[in-house]
Amino acid sequence: MVKKIRYAIGIDLGGTSIKLGIVTDEGKIIKKNSVATMAEKGPDSIISQIKKGIKELLEGNKLKINGIGVGCPGVVSTKKGTVENPPNLPGWGKVNLVKILEKATGAAVFVENDANAAAIGEYIFGAGKKYNSFVMITLGTGVGGGIILKRKIYRGDFGAAGEIGHITIDYKGPKCNCGSYGCIETYIGNSYLVERVKKELNGKQSVIKELVHGNLNLLTPKIINEAAGSGDEFAEEVVREMGVYLGAALASLSNALDIGVFIIGGGVSGFGKPLFEAIEENARARVLTPLRKRIKVFPAKLRNDAGIKGASALVFYK
Amino acid sequence: MVKKIRYAIGIDLGGTSIKLGIVTDEGKIIKKNSVATMAEKGPDSIISQIKKGIKELLEGNKLKINGIGVGCPGVVSTKKGTVENPPNLPGWGKVNLVKILEKATGAAVFVENDANAAAIGEYIFGAGKKYNSFVMITLGTGVGGGIILKRKIYRGDFGAAGEIGHITIDYKGPKCNCGSYGCIETYIGNSYLVERVKKELNGKQSVIKELVHGNLNLLTPKIINEAAGSGDEFAEEVVREMGVYLGAALASLSNALDIGVFIIGGGVSGFGKPLFEAIEENARARVLTPLRKRIKVFPAKLRNDAGIKGASALVFYK
Repeated sequence: MVKKIRYAIGIDLGGTSIKLGIVTDEGKIIKKNSVATMAEKGPDSIISQIKKGIKELLEGNKLKINGIGVGCPGVVSTKKGTVENPPNLPGWGKVNLVKILEKATGAAVFVENDANAAAIGEYIFGAGKKYNSFVMITLGTGVGGGIILKRKIYRGDFGAAGEIGHITIDYKGPKCNCGSYGCIETYIGNSYLVERVKKELNGKQSVIKELVHGNLNLLTPKIINEAAGSGDEFAEEVVREMGVYLGAALASLSNALDIGVFIIGGGVSGFGKPLFEAIEENARARVLTPLRKRIKVFPAKLRNDAGIKGASALVFYK
Repeated sequence: MVKKIRYAIGIDLGGTSIKLGIVTDEGKIIKKNSVATMAEKGPDSIISQIKKGIKELLEGNKLKINGIGVGCPGVVSTKKGTVENPPNLPGWGKVNLVKILEKATGAAVFVENDANAAAIGEYIFGAGKKYNSFVMITLGTGVGGGIILKRKIYRGDFGAAGEIGHITIDYKGPKCNCGSYGCIETYIGNSYLVERVKKELNGKQSVIKELVHGNLNLLTPKIINEAAGSGDEFAEEVVREMGVYLGAALASLSNALDIGVFIIGGGVSGFGKPLFEAIEENARARVLTPLRKRIKVFPAKLRNDAGIKGASALVFYK
């Protein structure tokens, strides 16, 4: 008997563009498109853009869609279906996206915070498939997280769980945008990382300087990775340090939650093996003995279109 | 209609003595006793002592007992009923305490790690009654923890969850017995605390020196508390610092788990309001904004006989 393929629409609601795709229940994108968010025009316009994107996506095919999943930043109430003040959509307020899109499409609609959607995406389609419990960390401008506990996304009592980026690794450490000190985000969040490396580069020899053609304003995590890959000692040390920092944060979480599996996505997941090995080694050295052999740190599997796939996974997860 | 009272036996299996009590479903102890553990004689002898304690407890009354709960250190499998290598019972190995005691008594028996039993005790009888989710921290020689998530004890996939004492607050901090660095236990665990304060006292004025009659080997957390209560500036500063340390650890946990309620028991819960206020203030200042108003830190309610009550709560929790 041929297995019947199911389809979902995944929508990644970003500040600049809205990415949409039809995704199979095995995580394959069979059609995708993208429309401008035009965030400055406010929620009504954004919702029109989403509808336009869905319409375009469905044109010319007769697929039965099992549902629509939307991943977006901000405070999401999965029960009520509301999305509140996504930081990249100024003036949004509070919108019941589920109600609006269900009415417009007739399909079942699910919304989720983008960090949780990424975790659900890895759980349904990706590197987390085999595990009952894991933590998904998304390294980007900020450091986001989603926690799968015993085969379910853990949202906490008020939907705010998973803020892995604000685990402190030094209570007297650098000031974080959140108001606290020494949050792991202040060590490995893209902009903090780049700023620190810029300072540390001062007076040191490194191929990084050539890679940015002498203009350190062009420095990105990608370039640090490239330099480390080419054997640059300074860049290699930066990668090892990232392992120390993130390893310490993950060990705290591991000891508290008895979780050994960590999946890392976002820009930095493009970093090579040395970073993942450094994180794993440091976390392993720091956790309580019984946990040691269970510590595993590996890159996310959903790379390109992770946002679309994660959002579509909300449908299959449900 | 008169509410029918239910009864359970709670057993606190310690390294020196085994404390037992008959406890009502409202957490009142109506009879208690204690037998020597005689740990050095090995598991068979210890189990005989437990049986002896239960027999004595039931003599002279005809109460119907709903079950027996046992709290003990070490790795406990609540599913299998086994207790493995409690650190205070050398040579114990792995014993199926549930099977043995059920056979001996005919009652339903439940075992649980003592830190989790303390959390369940506060949840059923104490300061956690009103809350869906909270973290119970037991401050003693070590720093133990138990996590109640959505009205259930959270044990993790392998029963090792809740090791709050090994959340790091400084990845380059003091070396911990567990092998890691800067675990919160190395700042506020009784022996670490006492050692640090001894060193810091060097050359400083403090009423502590009088309270220990010049012999710093007599220093205990209780004496630090007494000194702080009498307005001793040095001791007050120690209490404030404890708030900074524990506040940082709890904020990490709060951000990761979306939990705002923390209940603190053990020896240090005898500390007065200033400690709890300092912890609360520091945790609140460090968590993400939406969590701030939900941060609450207060002392455990089960003080004396917390071990017996927590163990008995296992019966009513089930």
